[in-house]
Amino acid sequence: MEFESLKGFRDFLPEEMVARREVFQRIEGVVQSFGFREIDLPSLEKMKLFEVKSGEELVDQTYSFEDKGERKVTLIPEQTPSRARVLAKEKSLNEPVKWYSTSKRWRYEQTQKGRLREFYQTDVDIFGADSVEADAEIITVLVEIMREMGVEKAVEVLINDRNLVEEVLDKEDVEDKRKVMEVIDDREKMSPEEFLEELMDIGLDKDRAERIDDIVGIKGPLNEKLDDLEELVSGDVEGALERMEELAEILENYGVLENVKLDMSIVRGLDYYTGLVFEVFDKKGELRAICGGGRYDELVELFGGEEVPAVGFAIGDAVIEELMRREDVWPKEKLMTDVYVLPVSKSVVEEATEIVRELRGEGLVVETDLKDRNVSAQLNYANYIGAEKVIIVGERDLDEGKVTVKEMESGEEELVKIEDVTQKEFKSTR
Amino acid sequence: MEFESLKGFRDFLPEEMVARREVFQRIEGVVQSFGFREIDLPSLEKMKLFEVKSGEELVDQTYSFEDKGERKVTLIPEQTPSRARVLAKEKSLNEPVKWYSTSKRWRYEQTQKGRLREFYQTDVDIFGADSVEADAEIITVLVEIMREMGVEKAVEVLINDRNLVEEVLDKEDVEDKRKVMEVIDDREKMSPEEFLEELMDIGLDKDRAERIDDIVGIKGPLNEKLDDLEELVSGDVEGALERMEELAEILENYGVLENVKLDMSIVRGLDYYTGLVFEVFDKKGELRAICGGGRYDELVELFGGEEVPAVGFAIGDAVIEELMRREDVWPKEKLMTDVYVLPVSKSVVEEATEIVRELRGEGLVVETDLKDRNVSAQLNYANYIGAEKVIIVGERDLDEGKVTVKEMESGEEELVKIEDVTQKEFKSTR
Repeated sequence: MEFESLKGFRDFLPEEMVARREVFQRIEGVVQSFGFREIDLPSLEKMKLFEVKSGEELVDQTYSFEDKGERKVTLIPEQTPSRARVLAKEKSLNEPVKWYSTSKRWRYEQTQKGRLREFYQTDVDIFGADSVEADAEIITVLVEIMREMGVEKAVEVLINDRNLVEEVLDKEDVEDKRKVMEVIDDREKMSPEEFLEELMDIGLDKDRAERIDDIVGIKGPLNEKLDDLEELVSGDVEGALERMEELAEILENYGVLENVKLDMSIVRGLDYYTGLVFEVFDKKGELRAICGGGRYDELVELFGGEEVPAVGFAIGDAVIEELMRREDVWPKEKLMTDVYVLPVSKSVVEEATEIVRELRGEGLVVETDLKDRNVSAQLNYANYIGAEKVIIVGERDLDEGKVTVKEMESGEEELVKIEDVTQKEFKSTR
Repeated sequence: MEFESLKGFRDFLPEEMVARREVFQRIEGVVQSFGFREIDLPSLEKMKLFEVKSGEELVDQTYSFEDKGERKVTLIPEQTPSRARVLAKEKSLNEPVKWYSTSKRWRYEQTQKGRLREFYQTDVDIFGADSVEADAEIITVLVEIMREMGVEKAVEVLINDRNLVEEVLDKEDVEDKRKVMEVIDDREKMSPEEFLEELMDIGLDKDRAERIDDIVGIKGPLNEKLDDLEELVSGDVEGALERMEELAEILENYGVLENVKLDMSIVRGLDYYTGLVFEVFDKKGELRAICGGGRYDELVELFGGEEVPAVGFAIGDAVIEELMRREDVWPKEKLMTDVYVLPVSKSVVEEATEIVRELRGEGLVVETDLKDRNVSAQLNYANYIGAEKVIIVGERDLDEGKVTVKEMESGEEELVKIEDVTQKEFKSTR
């Protein structure tokens, strides 16, 4: 009988996990240094929770089912609704609430490159701060993650502000801003001509449509483009433009301004985000979006809480892995072990065990023979597990109270007194 | 509108996560020092996988459903069948295969103390080694975990060997050993009289039933009880008894023999385990079993692979937490932060940001103001996040190129030159 895993689900064996664990730890290390705190929420929630945020259509793309108690439940496709649920309930959290977690998410979709049915996602949010400083911190942590992953130069961080777009539309006396925003949101899928046509179809004259096209086409280094924009709208769009200029200043102080571009076409849907929006793309354009996020000040209210301003992002594991592999910065997939203790014969197992025990007690990663193998088979295994040192315990050496310490990389061997073994220098790979 | 999580599912906020993360890391630290390697397998598998191992009845106690592609799927209640699936497929793994992982499991059961619908479990297995050394390593790692958790003295590690019981039954000329084993497996639920009656009901005479009762009642320090047993069966049960004696010897070498008791009544069901079996109990008897495991050499074959000997255990998060809380060894649930950088006014934010950036670059956990708050509100927040130091950035100090470093525990303050701030001694809490 043959058993397979489900399509879109992955098995990770130890070698792969060494690399994945390193990547997760590096991402979390950055996030932690900013004072984000780990939380952990359920993987299964009432389906209602996702209908409130995303509508029934999106719920169709989830693993949703009736449990044995006839509750409609959903394997979480994202953690934000659960976070909103908790925030709506917990009234007295100390603000700002800075949360992260890296855990599994599920989507029932056609699987394709970079899109799986089970994946990991790191969610990073600041709740309870509507300041531009909070926006800046979110952008900064994102850029620092890209740096830590070694893909800083391979990606573009594109930002925009929904309010900035709306203010520009106001300035252009656009009446049905929502409809125009919808066209902007779809712009990526259209030719330039189609975009203008769509705008004219909803009642804009050609001149105005072209001006909007110009504005929405603004894309480039943040500071430079903010200057262009200010000129273009003759200095009138104070609120959002001023905030964006402040944002640029803080990003400069954090040393990440050079990594950020303004892209006035980024809107990210219409129902969710309320201010800052951003996306991270592969510069070569070969991969799906690496990360997306923004400010969503109205979400928690939806779940019955008071208004809680919120800004954050989510980064999945699949696309960043593809990118890191392409850029040749994916960590080595190799096991690491501090010491393999090799008993040459059954008669020395007691002494070998004693050494194993002491070294493990020092926090080192230590393996020894579990299969009653000969010396050469044991050395092969020690090599496979990436042992830095092998301590060979043999009868003749033992008679002199000694063991042989072999450095696996250089092949050098040294006779060492047993009582000195634990004094040797070991680097822990744990 | 009110939203609740599902019954039997938990939300963990940052303070709780600090403690949980520490506990998980301590468990994994022990496991890693023995050379167990992390793997990660799907949370959702075909239902068939669990029917093969556990039968349809047990699958009734899982979250199983039909996905949108009409596949019968199950949220994994345990990871062992998935491990067997992988092992049956991967022919060329280097043995011994030593795997661990800590991840979520789900069961659809009545929730009660220590029994949740979503829980974490650490699974630790050795595949490909049928040696007593492998058995000993599994027992040793388990005892070391109990030590690391600080509950060594609060628990009993009870071990047995199915083959030992069978050999004893052979010695007693029991014909239908399986029936007798079933009665033994149910012994816990019976009075001593009922146990004898049950044995006699399946055809044993009173004398033989009493002898079996005596043997099954053997419980105590491993070495001592092995001696008793040898006497009782007049030295005839060579195979399994000899192995158990070897096990005791290795456990002694590993310094854990004193923690292990023989309990001849432990059988752990009939269909799964093939040799060593063990359970860890709270000595006070207030809690559910903390951990269980054993040798199960026939599992991988069930999934279409060759025979792969296997020994391992699983430890869930719920009962160990109850025990650690009761024993007052659960870690502190308190946030920790290296530095809070406190800008006294808007005018010094640039300089404050510069300090924040440098300290984060050193790998420290650093927070600063995101809510434009006054000094006292910022100090309250710094206190809440457990900041060790607060760096107060004020205009007057800045004019002299200095900032104030406040030690939060002692309240001591010191004026420090800005360029010396990063030279100060910081202990990273990350």
